[in-house]
Amino acid sequence: MGDTPLMVPGFRLGVAACGIKSESGVGKRQDLMLIACDVDAHAAGMFTQNAFRAACVDLAEQALHDDPCHIRAVIANSGNANAGTGIKERPWAEEMLQLAADTVGCSIEQVLSASTGVIGTPFPIARIQESVAACGDNLTADQWLPAAAAICTTDTFKKVGSRRIGDYTLTGMCKGAGMIHPNMATMLAFLTTDAPLPADVLQTLLKQAVTRSFNSISVDGDTSTNDTILLLSSGLGLGHVPLDDYHAFSAALESLCIELAQKIVRDGEGVSKFVTIHVTGAKNETEARTLGRTVAVSPLVKTAFAGSDANWGRIIMAMGNCDISLKAHQVMLKADDVLIMNDGLLHENYRDAQGMAVFAKPEFTLHIDLGLGHGEATVWTGDLTHDYITINAEYRS
Amino acid sequence: MGDTPLMVPGFRLGVAACGIKSESGVGKRQDLMLIACDVDAHAAGMFTQNAFRAACVDLAEQALHDDPCHIRAVIANSGNANAGTGIKERPWAEEMLQLAADTVGCSIEQVLSASTGVIGTPFPIARIQESVAACGDNLTADQWLPAAAAICTTDTFKKVGSRRIGDYTLTGMCKGAGMIHPNMATMLAFLTTDAPLPADVLQTLLKQAVTRSFNSISVDGDTSTNDTILLLSSGLGLGHVPLDDYHAFSAALESLCIELAQKIVRDGEGVSKFVTIHVTGAKNETEARTLGRTVAVSPLVKTAFAGSDANWGRIIMAMGNCDISLKAHQVMLKADDVLIMNDGLLHENYRDAQGMAVFAKPEFTLHIDLGLGHGEATVWTGDLTHDYITINAEYRS
Repeated sequence: MGDTPLMVPGFRLGVAACGIKSESGVGKRQDLMLIACDVDAHAAGMFTQNAFRAACVDLAEQALHDDPCHIRAVIANSGNANAGTGIKERPWAEEMLQLAADTVGCSIEQVLSASTGVIGTPFPIARIQESVAACGDNLTADQWLPAAAAICTTDTFKKVGSRRIGDYTLTGMCKGAGMIHPNMATMLAFLTTDAPLPADVLQTLLKQAVTRSFNSISVDGDTSTNDTILLLSSGLGLGHVPLDDYHAFSAALESLCIELAQKIVRDGEGVSKFVTIHVTGAKNETEARTLGRTVAVSPLVKTAFAGSDANWGRIIMAMGNCDISLKAHQVMLKADDVLIMNDGLLHENYRDAQGMAVFAKPEFTLHIDLGLGHGEATVWTGDLTHDYITINAEYRS
Repeated sequence: MGDTPLMVPGFRLGVAACGIKSESGVGKRQDLMLIACDVDAHAAGMFTQNAFRAACVDLAEQALHDDPCHIRAVIANSGNANAGTGIKERPWAEEMLQLAADTVGCSIEQVLSASTGVIGTPFPIARIQESVAACGDNLTADQWLPAAAAICTTDTFKKVGSRRIGDYTLTGMCKGAGMIHPNMATMLAFLTTDAPLPADVLQTLLKQAVTRSFNSISVDGDTSTNDTILLLSSGLGLGHVPLDDYHAFSAALESLCIELAQKIVRDGEGVSKFVTIHVTGAKNETEARTLGRTVAVSPLVKTAFAGSDANWGRIIMAMGNCDISLKAHQVMLKADDVLIMNDGLLHENYRDAQGMAVFAKPEFTLHIDLGLGHGEATVWTGDLTHDYITINAEYRS
């Protein structure tokens, strides 16, 4: 997971330590990050649907809506989410945008921002004021790892990745959290490319990739107030020619998003197991994903994972509660290669010890076939352990 | 919780020990229960919506659909849910109905059955065969407590209650489990009355009462394969006159169902706190309940309860994820009498210590007002603790 990410022509990154994340800690940790684009970038974004979402999310969505073709910078801090902070929340978010605009030398409409950290604590804008210029002073194309570290909160490792699409490059980072750490409000992901794709295409491809990656993971079923995913293109790739078709880029984008999303599950609070839920035979992809997510969020299924207990009764219970087309007598269930249930009935050759052997592994796959159609989806999740309770009941950020 | 339940004219109960529940235990515990009605009872029922529901549930629903006006018996066992047991599941359930019909002296269509216990283990019909007659031999009107004990599985106390409506009596029992113990498949509730109400009225009143009671509790958000609630009327109340209006009966029914439902939450796996979530100002009652349930099932909210952490950020996060009409800037949040948030903003006088003092109590109420209309609902839930993980990850029934 420490692979060196590839540099992307047109993008440079800077980091600084404001002291937000480590006010009470030993020494300063980097907690502010600036991505600057040397030219006007085309950009796409996806944002949390939470009704209490933070002002920075509203502002980023509005900026992309107004003009997604002239983005010059992304500024992000960790340690404080600037969410639930009251009437100053929006002015604080705007001031952070202005600081980045001044540093990069562009207008405020050309900047997107994101914040992650505790909810409901006054935003320390003065500390950011002092440090944005420092980010601007050390902009280089190779600082993906320090930048990925600067957006981490309770993460235990940096999450970065790259793909090559012909001569083009796609590099991204993410942090958190998915639906894992809503108190550390947010999952953030920033992706950049030099492939010359217009904003509307970026948006279409991003939406599809996110559905199959970040929106296909679950740790505890909660969604934060600050989730933000941004994809920026400098268009500075070799030759400046448009891509003939988007297929290769789309596949690379999806693959990178899945890699980053899986890293979030692996780093999930208290997670000791990584479980893939592969659903086939649904009426359509959406229903397949809905079923997979229903199984993935069930506390009883997740505690069974934790206990290495091949408790298929809980899995069919969770499936049965899912609000999609389902015919119980057509359902097939396998754990890795072990057939547990066929045509909705416990398979006659199934022995509990076989299932137990699979569930005892640190990684395994549940295969669920609904026998209704060609809808297919994969969802990734972890188990629910004592550590999750300890982290969330006994610790307050 | 040990109040002696009132006898209901027309109904007698019998219990027996088949040895299903305590095969490996010390001595036999009672695990079979028969409710017999001396006359044809009018009956109403509500059943789990789980797609993998047990055959006994299908059979009970069908019987009530075909003729809800001549019910003579309810037979229920604990220790084995007869769910996920394969092609014999339905014949086993039918045989249990026939055994009860023979004992009471009625036809199979006049019997309703329910099973609770482990999923996916062959149903020990031979043991039931041996014991049904024993139930029939000891039928008396005062055995509500032994009968309530006979349907318990992981329950730690018996759950019974009574109401008087003028000269009429309403008495009920329940077990489990709600969405708490789906592996011990089921919440069961059996209610009887001598008030002469026809089956269609019973059904209407039951549906409303269940919405506001059993369907308003949550322990872990999972719903079992065997949930069954039955309401039977012998019509043998004093004077045999119809009730002038249903209001008093409906209120008593709702009150009793709430009492029984709350007992399920208090007996929830690992539950150390009892939290009431009172939602007002929603567009309608359904949306109010949906919001309350969304907050009630959030693992992050429930671990905050467990940690006595007044983590209002998690509460608004959970609210924001709810798929109902919501205007963040109109939301009010109180914990008991402590105003935390008003007009969607943290109240200026709120101090963390005030919230912490409330969350430290074993019972408290969250008041949430959405400022949109007159929809109101109350939901009851518990906290999510280490004991829940221990019970569900380290224990297999």
